[in-house]
Amino acid sequence: VPVPQTYEQKLWYPYNLDFDFSVMAQFQNFSINNLGDPFIESNYGVHSRQFEVAVLDWFARLWDLQQDEYWGYITNCGTEGNLHGLLVGRELFPDGIIYASCESHYSVFKAARMYRVECVEIDTLVSGEMNCADFKSKLSQNPGRPAIVNVNIGTTVKGAIDDLDRIIRTLEKCGFRDRFYIHCDGALAGLMMPFIKQAPKVTFKKPIGSVSVSGHKFMGCPVPCGVVITRLEHVKVLSTDIEYLSSRDATIMGSRNGHAPMFLWYTLNKKGYRGIRKEVQKCLRNAHHLANRLREAGVSAYLNELSSTVVFERPHDEAFVHKWQLACEGSIAHVVVMPNVSVEKLNNFVEELIGERPRWHEGGGFRVPCVAKDIGQENCLCGVHDKKLRVV
Amino acid sequence: VPVPQTYEQKLWYPYNLDFDFSVMAQFQNFSINNLGDPFIESNYGVHSRQFEVAVLDWFARLWDLQQDEYWGYITNCGTEGNLHGLLVGRELFPDGIIYASCESHYSVFKAARMYRVECVEIDTLVSGEMNCADFKSKLSQNPGRPAIVNVNIGTTVKGAIDDLDRIIRTLEKCGFRDRFYIHCDGALAGLMMPFIKQAPKVTFKKPIGSVSVSGHKFMGCPVPCGVVITRLEHVKVLSTDIEYLSSRDATIMGSRNGHAPMFLWYTLNKKGYRGIRKEVQKCLRNAHHLANRLREAGVSAYLNELSSTVVFERPHDEAFVHKWQLACEGSIAHVVVMPNVSVEKLNNFVEELIGERPRWHEGGGFRVPCVAKDIGQENCLCGVHDKKLRVV
Repeated sequence: VPVPQTYEQKLWYPYNLDFDFSVMAQFQNFSINNLGDPFIESNYGVHSRQFEVAVLDWFARLWDLQQDEYWGYITNCGTEGNLHGLLVGRELFPDGIIYASCESHYSVFKAARMYRVECVEIDTLVSGEMNCADFKSKLSQNPGRPAIVNVNIGTTVKGAIDDLDRIIRTLEKCGFRDRFYIHCDGALAGLMMPFIKQAPKVTFKKPIGSVSVSGHKFMGCPVPCGVVITRLEHVKVLSTDIEYLSSRDATIMGSRNGHAPMFLWYTLNKKGYRGIRKEVQKCLRNAHHLANRLREAGVSAYLNELSSTVVFERPHDEAFVHKWQLACEGSIAHVVVMPNVSVEKLNNFVEELIGERPRWHEGGGFRVPCVAKDIGQENCLCGVHDKKLRVV
Repeated sequence: VPVPQTYEQKLWYPYNLDFDFSVMAQFQNFSINNLGDPFIESNYGVHSRQFEVAVLDWFARLWDLQQDEYWGYITNCGTEGNLHGLLVGRELFPDGIIYASCESHYSVFKAARMYRVECVEIDTLVSGEMNCADFKSKLSQNPGRPAIVNVNIGTTVKGAIDDLDRIIRTLEKCGFRDRFYIHCDGALAGLMMPFIKQAPKVTFKKPIGSVSVSGHKFMGCPVPCGVVITRLEHVKVLSTDIEYLSSRDATIMGSRNGHAPMFLWYTLNKKGYRGIRKEVQKCLRNAHHLANRLREAGVSAYLNELSSTVVFERPHDEAFVHKWQLACEGSIAHVVVMPNVSVEKLNNFVEELIGERPRWHEGGGFRVPCVAKDIGQENCLCGVHDKKLRVV
């Protein structure tokens, strides 16, 4: 088996690589399949439902839903959580329109297309957050049709947190009370927010319908997976009894990976609330360190207050981008600072970037590129926007 | 970790448990993720795309599609393959109707609902096969709308093979030439048919659009997965470029398990064509043995000619059903004879069934239940249908 050389090095992917792999050995000798509904014993005996339900209970508590009021399952990935949440929304409001900011994950737009639901894209602020003024204006164009809203708890590129409270207020002010469904896409940050004191709270005490989070991102599960939690009353709209399984079909997928719940269960138990909180704090601290180092070095950078995703000018060298496995979009790139990314690694990255950057532009006279459009004038260090003109 | 006691015993599930688990140890120490399109290198370095593409090439060859003419990916399960195939069908024929026999897998009906496509259920013959006379009559009720047809290469309960050639002829005779899309659901038997000489051939030389198969069934991959293959020209209708991944989105799920392709690749290489053929032959032989043993013992049983799924009267005892993990539907149960199910195990099963059966009916005078409705009069050994009256 070829060992990927870049395993230790990759910087941008929001995967926590601190997983204790020795534990996998204990779980590996069975073909484990959690098909059907996690809460209904099927007739296939080799499952890990008890682990799955324990993990789901943990998440339901985290988001303030009582044990007898929630339903959920462990998905194959973040996309499946979004597909499920938005499907529940559509089944509750067959005539609804999906509203999602243009910085939402691509699975949201895929869902709209799959489900044949009209989708209205909302503008974003420079931070990446949904622009609620634009949301209001677009809601008012379709006052008669219910709203299915995708709320980003951490956008993919900038890690921006949509303002859930303001979105709810906007819906209510625009006359959508009892005629909206909110799905919270918390892929990465959905598991970080609850551990940050000053963060807005994602909770089922607010009128939301579902929350999803990835298991292989902050949790560091070594196989792609996720968790979706919704209200028990909602899921009844889309479940079907399947006699030959002695179970019920309410999931998007059929057979489901039975190892993932064990990995998640193990991680939650090993780290606990306090362990996760410590990791979240470390990530935020290190992300601030990276953003500061970049700015000090004259690289335009932006970091949302509650995020560990540092956005900065796109390196103009494919080899550098490939080496550090940077994700790029337009004129920016980002680094997602995860628990396994150390300060030392971040420093090495910045040093290399600074050292190589002048060489990427032929003929010398390198000028800092303008990224004001992406991260705002106030964060741009280009010749026009920076107070002092920088020629490196 | 609790070791499931029933692991060795389960009879009905179509999972090949002969996997060489020692190989998992080699693959386990990485978080492997094949996100995006298998044929486009993304910027996440820890993937197993080279294995994935090798496996896909193998399946494309098996079903007669040239390397430059096919597209496909390794899915999370059989359901995802069906969801993908039917979505391609709908995107090609937005106004199409899904036709599927009533014995199709539940994921087909779930897809119709998710995708907001009208679904027409076709009657089946006693064997479980699609009734083409009924198909013809239902096609003629909607002559103006294209047909998206789900063809079962092995139904879930009876292992029946729909008659692909006759379905195509029916479509053409009814005036649907160039206005139909066929998805072949080959979950279990899709990998068995190519190795049986007298079996009808599933091939892209016929006008089919996609084929899907499960990886954890006949292939015995220890995590749920599957393969879907379609024509390259078709998939263009549903792919979107995703800049921040440097890849393209044409799959249903986003992040995809990177271990599954390695397990599949390993199994295909270890067993090869000849190894798989031997296993298929063994399964058919053992299934015939089981059906014969049951009939000799006075238990009504049915076995489709090209199947290893033995259908028989439902045991009237929940403890027995649970112990042997039998899947039941109405008045019948089934056993799927997989490579890891030995003749000895089958004999033990029959002996126990025969020994316990008289005790399941109070007051003595046990009569063989009638299952003519499910498996046909000619296969029913009840007092009315059997030539000689049996009182055990």
